[in-house]
Amino acid sequence: MKEKIRVGYVGCGRRGYGIVKHNLADMDDVEIVMICDLCEASLERMRALLEEKGRPTPKMTTDYREVISNPDIDAVFFMTGWSGRPQMAMEAMRAGKYTAIEVGCADDLQECFDLVRTYEETGVPVMMLENCCYGRREMMALRLVREGLFGDVVHCTGGYHHDLREEDLFRAPKGEEYPHYRLGYYKTRNYENYPTHELGPISKILRINRGNRMVKLASFASKSAGLKEYAARVFGKDSPEANTEYAQGDIVTTLITCADGSTVLLNLDTTLPRAYYSRNFSVRETLGMSSEEGHVVFFDGMPHKIRDNEAEMYEKYDHPLHAEYVSKGVKIGHGGIDWLVCRAFIESVKAGTNTPIDAYDTAAWLAVGPLSEQSVKAGGAPVDFPDFTNGKWMNREPVVRGKYCLDEIVVDDSISVE
Amino acid sequence: MKEKIRVGYVGCGRRGYGIVKHNLADMDDVEIVMICDLCEASLERMRALLEEKGRPTPKMTTDYREVISNPDIDAVFFMTGWSGRPQMAMEAMRAGKYTAIEVGCADDLQECFDLVRTYEETGVPVMMLENCCYGRREMMALRLVREGLFGDVVHCTGGYHHDLREEDLFRAPKGEEYPHYRLGYYKTRNYENYPTHELGPISKILRINRGNRMVKLASFASKSAGLKEYAARVFGKDSPEANTEYAQGDIVTTLITCADGSTVLLNLDTTLPRAYYSRNFSVRETLGMSSEEGHVVFFDGMPHKIRDNEAEMYEKYDHPLHAEYVSKGVKIGHGGIDWLVCRAFIESVKAGTNTPIDAYDTAAWLAVGPLSEQSVKAGGAPVDFPDFTNGKWMNREPVVRGKYCLDEIVVDDSISVE
Repeated sequence: MKEKIRVGYVGCGRRGYGIVKHNLADMDDVEIVMICDLCEASLERMRALLEEKGRPTPKMTTDYREVISNPDIDAVFFMTGWSGRPQMAMEAMRAGKYTAIEVGCADDLQECFDLVRTYEETGVPVMMLENCCYGRREMMALRLVREGLFGDVVHCTGGYHHDLREEDLFRAPKGEEYPHYRLGYYKTRNYENYPTHELGPISKILRINRGNRMVKLASFASKSAGLKEYAARVFGKDSPEANTEYAQGDIVTTLITCADGSTVLLNLDTTLPRAYYSRNFSVRETLGMSSEEGHVVFFDGMPHKIRDNEAEMYEKYDHPLHAEYVSKGVKIGHGGIDWLVCRAFIESVKAGTNTPIDAYDTAAWLAVGPLSEQSVKAGGAPVDFPDFTNGKWMNREPVVRGKYCLDEIVVDDSISVE
Repeated sequence: MKEKIRVGYVGCGRRGYGIVKHNLADMDDVEIVMICDLCEASLERMRALLEEKGRPTPKMTTDYREVISNPDIDAVFFMTGWSGRPQMAMEAMRAGKYTAIEVGCADDLQECFDLVRTYEETGVPVMMLENCCYGRREMMALRLVREGLFGDVVHCTGGYHHDLREEDLFRAPKGEEYPHYRLGYYKTRNYENYPTHELGPISKILRINRGNRMVKLASFASKSAGLKEYAARVFGKDSPEANTEYAQGDIVTTLITCADGSTVLLNLDTTLPRAYYSRNFSVRETLGMSSEEGHVVFFDGMPHKIRDNEAEMYEKYDHPLHAEYVSKGVKIGHGGIDWLVCRAFIESVKAGTNTPIDAYDTAAWLAVGPLSEQSVKAGGAPVDFPDFTNGKWMNREPVVRGKYCLDEIVVDDSISVE
């Protein structure tokens, strides 16, 4: 076990800064030795933060290759925009660095195949930092499924129901020089561009890549009306924003069928007015259900018309990791899930094991974007989901058995080596 | 205007009985002159009910053709099981009777074409009694859309989220001789078998057949696990119920794309444990949203994180029909929607107009079943949605302008003749 992990940190924008501020900078076993961003102001801000927190002053660079080639670095975080992230990750893996990438989807399917090949050739782990895999609700559902209390899983839903118009698309966050890069995607592409917040936990529940796999995917995009209407109302009818064509449909519905006959429904919902944020997480089984919209966990035989019983269910069925975490005082940042996913990665680096979200998971989740784009273009025709494991999914076992494992429910603190 | 409508009533089972008991038997302008069922006990029960309510004793028959050929009858209700209903309806239309049919879907696409041809040849109206079109939530959304307060409609969801295992599939309702016929469908077919409760109101909101139409449909079925597991648990592993194969997938997801670029998501969800009944009604627009799951109506610009504000929204935006109805005291039976849909039909018969849900609507909604079966069989490949109007949808105007109209919002009581 390594005692301290030396981190190279690429991407110091809003998200990258937040992850350090609320998580990594507070971890005694993590030292950020080098930071990288194209924006000097973002670099300065991050350096100031680390000094303020009493951490060593990091080296700064605008060239990510300097991070990758730095022999003092054990692991690299890529908290950059969507494009180019898998390529940088592969370079880091080839340089022998444990690699973490922020959530997102691939620009092209080839990236996903390349990522898997890079992993298989180098043996160096790569992990998508899908924080929602460590969500309390999602982990409780995972526990109930693994302990057999829910029976056979039949159908799951998830979504990214988040109105991004004001905060993320049209207005650059305060303190950043660039307009949000996501808007470029919305102008040019039409697909499920943000699937992993729910597909991640659902994949774990369904044992994707470990006894099950995604077989087919179909996506359907509604018309694109929200951004243009919003821009005309907010910026004026003659504004450039109102006179731009947006390719992205407002609501993209994606249906995935799995080898075990279960189905997954995903929705992207980011450019229309919404009353509240939701990931629309639900899991349906032969013995029960969990539903974010109803805030309910239900077991067959309970009286009907139940909603809002999650608080008492957490008392009984909290995932042991959350129970421990809550007892120690919850860290901020998306309800603690950022902390947990960062710890899961760091613990893997320290122990020298594979990561709980591994290269096959990362590739499969990254692939949803380009696959959904294909299907949308084909009018919703289902497309084949590649088997990135090349048949190994049939017999793969969980590779990490520590408490951050998402495949089995592990109570004790030991992390076994593969 | 006719003062009294003489009704022939075919189908006196649980649903047929309930509609008479709580609705038709209390309408002074309706006289049920003949009742029909294959089950003598059901006929007797209905006769007793009508006498108990102080209504004239109806003639009784086990042959629906006697109802259709009875010259004293103005209108026929078919409250029978799913199969054969469209055929009986067409016979009634050819005999010149206004025809009402209970909700359901066609066994075959041909029935839908035949129904439209029968309407076009005879000019006799036929109406699916889709009570949910008159739901308070759905009518409020219709009003908000028509008045422009919601902007452009982009996406709608609906579903039949109703655990039918105990009440409807495995146990015949009390007092009925036959086991529930629906179980036969679940054994042999795999499709969206009950789409209209939400597709009905959504169609009206989207102006389907009146300026818009459904263009493509794709359906995806999960594995079938719920019924078999339930039967083994409740009836025993050696029971016939547990040793039957059920063809019906537990969750069927259907995606419909419309000519105007909007999308509709439907879910059939009837054979797994559920915490609560829901039709998952939601309408998403450029200026707002309505959501059953959140019990919320939201307009862009309101503070976020709003749920459960429907009560105050009904104060402001209740559909005038519901406002009038509530002020007169709500009738029982699914919150009054049975009463309203029956009144809508009866008022049309009295006025000699077309019905608010007409032959084209009825045919399109009936068609979802067989279309979804085709798509499920083809692994979710989208299928073309027939244009039952044969191009007339582009320019069709609302044909009924009375207060029960579902195309426009009509406040006054006048019902104009086409």
